[in-house]
Amino acid sequence: MNTQLSINGSVPQRLAQTRELMSREGIHALLVPSADPHLSEYLPGYWQGRQWLSGFHGSVGTLIVTPDFAGVWADSRYWEQATKELKGSGIELVKLQPGQPGPLEWLAEQTPEGGVVAVDGAVMAVASARTLGTRLEERGARLRTDIDLLSGVWTDRPGLPDEPIYQHLPPQATVSRGEKLAKLRETLQARGADWHFIATLDDIAWLFNLRGGDVSFNPVFVSFALINQQQATLFVALSKVSAELRAILEQDGVTLRDYSEVAAALRAVPSGASLQVDPARVTAGLLDNLDSGVKLIEGLNPTTLAKSQKSLADAEHIRQAMEQDGAALCEFFAWLDSALGRERITELTIDEKLTAARERRPDYVSLSFNTIAAFNANGAMPHYHATEEEHAVIEGDGLLLIDSGGQYLGGTTDITRMVAVGTPTDEQKRDCTRVLKGVIALSRAQFPKGILSPLLDAIARAPIWAESVDYGHGTGHGVGYFLNVHEGPQVIAYQAAPAPQTAMQPGMITSIEPGTYRPGRWGVRIENLAMNREAGKSEFGEFLKFETLTQCPIDTRCLEISLLSDEEKQWFNAYHTEVRERLSPLVEGAALEWLNTRTAAI
Amino acid sequence: MNTQLSINGSVPQRLAQTRELMSREGIHALLVPSADPHLSEYLPGYWQGRQWLSGFHGSVGTLIVTPDFAGVWADSRYWEQATKELKGSGIELVKLQPGQPGPLEWLAEQTPEGGVVAVDGAVMAVASARTLGTRLEERGARLRTDIDLLSGVWTDRPGLPDEPIYQHLPPQATVSRGEKLAKLRETLQARGADWHFIATLDDIAWLFNLRGGDVSFNPVFVSFALINQQQATLFVALSKVSAELRAILEQDGVTLRDYSEVAAALRAVPSGASLQVDPARVTAGLLDNLDSGVKLIEGLNPTTLAKSQKSLADAEHIRQAMEQDGAALCEFFAWLDSALGRERITELTIDEKLTAARERRPDYVSLSFNTIAAFNANGAMPHYHATEEEHAVIEGDGLLLIDSGGQYLGGTTDITRMVAVGTPTDEQKRDCTRVLKGVIALSRAQFPKGILSPLLDAIARAPIWAESVDYGHGTGHGVGYFLNVHEGPQVIAYQAAPAPQTAMQPGMITSIEPGTYRPGRWGVRIENLAMNREAGKSEFGEFLKFETLTQCPIDTRCLEISLLSDEEKQWFNAYHTEVRERLSPLVEGAALEWLNTRTAAI
Repeated sequence: MNTQLSINGSVPQRLAQTRELMSREGIHALLVPSADPHLSEYLPGYWQGRQWLSGFHGSVGTLIVTPDFAGVWADSRYWEQATKELKGSGIELVKLQPGQPGPLEWLAEQTPEGGVVAVDGAVMAVASARTLGTRLEERGARLRTDIDLLSGVWTDRPGLPDEPIYQHLPPQATVSRGEKLAKLRETLQARGADWHFIATLDDIAWLFNLRGGDVSFNPVFVSFALINQQQATLFVALSKVSAELRAILEQDGVTLRDYSEVAAALRAVPSGASLQVDPARVTAGLLDNLDSGVKLIEGLNPTTLAKSQKSLADAEHIRQAMEQDGAALCEFFAWLDSALGRERITELTIDEKLTAARERRPDYVSLSFNTIAAFNANGAMPHYHATEEEHAVIEGDGLLLIDSGGQYLGGTTDITRMVAVGTPTDEQKRDCTRVLKGVIALSRAQFPKGILSPLLDAIARAPIWAESVDYGHGTGHGVGYFLNVHEGPQVIAYQAAPAPQTAMQPGMITSIEPGTYRPGRWGVRIENLAMNREAGKSEFGEFLKFETLTQCPIDTRCLEISLLSDEEKQWFNAYHTEVRERLSPLVEGAALEWLNTRTAAI
Repeated sequence: MNTQLSINGSVPQRLAQTRELMSREGIHALLVPSADPHLSEYLPGYWQGRQWLSGFHGSVGTLIVTPDFAGVWADSRYWEQATKELKGSGIELVKLQPGQPGPLEWLAEQTPEGGVVAVDGAVMAVASARTLGTRLEERGARLRTDIDLLSGVWTDRPGLPDEPIYQHLPPQATVSRGEKLAKLRETLQARGADWHFIATLDDIAWLFNLRGGDVSFNPVFVSFALINQQQATLFVALSKVSAELRAILEQDGVTLRDYSEVAAALRAVPSGASLQVDPARVTAGLLDNLDSGVKLIEGLNPTTLAKSQKSLADAEHIRQAMEQDGAALCEFFAWLDSALGRERITELTIDEKLTAARERRPDYVSLSFNTIAAFNANGAMPHYHATEEEHAVIEGDGLLLIDSGGQYLGGTTDITRMVAVGTPTDEQKRDCTRVLKGVIALSRAQFPKGILSPLLDAIARAPIWAESVDYGHGTGHGVGYFLNVHEGPQVIAYQAAPAPQTAMQPGMITSIEPGTYRPGRWGVRIENLAMNREAGKSEFGEFLKFETLTQCPIDTRCLEISLLSDEEKQWFNAYHTEVRERLSPLVEGAALEWLNTRTAAI
């Protein structure tokens, strides 16, 4: 993920060349988003054009270049990094803040009448392109999505990733690709769609029971899929697929075509046909290939909802993966407790030791994201990642925040725990205890099936708000099944729009991770994953409750137990009893001893 | 409110005449909403055309007439009544249900290409007319808003109401109309608006410190206002304003013109001027008068936000009104407890006795809505109102739900209490206790200033959802200051869209009224009003908390105290202590004794 791109030629030179091209093409402003044709969270180097052109390497940011201005819009996570990296580049950092105009609003306000804004349509969502296009038209300006200006300047552009594709097999793959395709076709038929085009890599990996290694942490592969009632075509670099796998896929009715042929395939969708597509999850450049006689049926990809609802069979594998992950954490924490104060430990050591513990576990594949090990002040940055150049030594007193996760064949984990280093202060303990109250409040909640998930956020925040504390990030994101650690459609965040597709359904897995961040001092976050389970039907409708999936003790040395209510203590003790019972068979020696100590009743 | 219109001529005859007119005008469908040019909740008889034409007298419902179909869309509150009233009329009841197409969707789907839909533009919000117009255009059909078909048929239409207008004076009016106008003009200037047009009666009454009696329960008067930096014109039937009041208003810079002159005044707004207007709160017919060169600046009326934020001076009067209202309730409840089982008491007696108790209180003006006194099964209908023809006798065992409120010069009250009749069952007690938990959870909550109010709903519902119970209505509506008992912009309801204008601000008053309804058995609702108060600023931002305004004991005989947590008992006892201390000076004898008994600590 933090692949540093080689810097050939300085950013000012690149900007000058780009501006020359813009002037030649009559373009007033160039928009370079952080995106690829799959609208992925993590981008292969081939699509890190914004990084290359601006020199800012943060993973999220938007660059705009005009003849006399260049700016990168970045949110608060990246201000420090961007300030450093943009220095002397001639590019301004524009601080992205709630209520302030973002880059698209800026373009809509600043583009002169008659002006042309260009963006590579291949990497801009149809929905965003429509919004920007309409706003520009209102000003008498115009959006061009048919030109990739960067390709004319970026001569040392990296190639496309080429990792082999492999099958996600039973027992962990609990539904065959044939069944998934049949179900999808039923849904398409019900929606009146003859065709369906998918650009999102997690949807494709899930649908075909395939996995890959093209981007860090997410076991996906660069591809597109085009499906109708008769055919299912997968567009990938053919070199990634072994002859054996190709034969299996063909037997299952899946045709392979080269990745580059997707445009031609879209052009061949017959006029008059209807095509299901999610305008927020497919780019303008791709859809531009369609004949104007193709009728679009717009909505969430059916696979996005289907893959969010894990089956009872999936749940069994997920529970095992959570136990293995918890056992790895016990081994790691037992080592940490014994080593702290006896050897030099840095945030980087934490990452190494924890990763090594996970690697020893069966069915482990990779990390599910970059480990965050953040001591004291570093913990106040929710997306901190220690580097060789900058990291803290774990010593003295305070709080160590560890947010980490693994990919297993039977599930994806994501857990945050606080560790007491030396003696935490009373204020630190109060912060940890309040955050735990938020975790407990939401974990215990029951709620109507189908409630829009953003509306549940206040339940986690109420005990935190009660003491005039809040946190800027969401409380929970969806999590995949040996897939992306961030997946929709549900999201527990009061900042998110409660759209119909965010409705809570059985089998969805969501993180519960409230926090408290005191810049320059410390940060607190406690995170478990929880699965929606049926809680029965009453005369008032159907209800859901959470099953806490994550199995790992919560460090009581960071807590002020007297602040917990009887009900909260009851939840806490029951959780620790379950953790002890489920993890004991998987650990031994010091780790088992640590587990027993850390799960003692309060 | 429940004015029965005289039935001259049968509904089928009226429909036939209407269809004849439609055919003559080339109209395919006629839409008759329940609305007036002020988009009020309660309509004067003059605008009860839907009632007149359909024979359905429920206060909310929409009629559509086509050559071969007529239907009334009504929500579940009215199904019983509508079924009865529409019988034999040739009009179908179309049950309005979440997820089903409403009347506007029906028109958008059913109108044939080339068809014309007519609605009296004088009573349809601009926003709705735009939406319907666009959808019809997409089908090649058209919306006409320039014809009031009904007026050609409705020969015995009632006249406009003509109640005198009076001033809301100091001390209860804490800001002069001059100051309010000056503040409004500042806001308009900041928004770049030269003019402002207001059609909503509560906004007008608040802005000019005037009150009237044109509709039941809401102390408003039928009027429009047109304001620019120099002039403020109030359009009312001049007969309603005494010469003395007229002189006072003129001295304050307020010009009076007859109600009928508003169209001419809108036509006279100069081309090129900008006019602030709320498209959801002004009708299409009125705005059609504007020159096409007038630039609309659309947004919430500034008065809507201003009047929702009660000042500290207002708060003092409101607290007094709440105490007087609570004292009236003590007298009433003391009588009820002594009379139950000794004399015949019906739901109607409750209404009479309670109204009489309120009428004895200083500064009392009227009820703020129709009293709901609902025994056992009747309580399961949230909008039940007992009538001479149908009402229950209060006898035996069970729960009596009383939802009532008063208009006082210093505030508007709205309170629901449960009364134990005989011995409530354990299930009834559990229902009451669970609802009380919801009231307490939200009443104790603290939350970020500016949070979108619908997002708070889950806090009240969490303890209710926890036992697989829910209720279909919102948890809280805004309340005016000697004005409407339902006012925006805030609303605590997960069913409502969390729009920016629903943000919680200091001084807003909202009801907290969770419930539980078991059809055919009983209903439970407990309701207090609460005001947003500043809770201080921390490094995480500014926070608000609720001050509970309503002062009246909550009947412990309906509760299962053992189900309350220590924290809940603490809140409950503190509330009862405050109620006792504040109401004791205002009651004596049996009422005082009742107050002391009913506020004993649990």
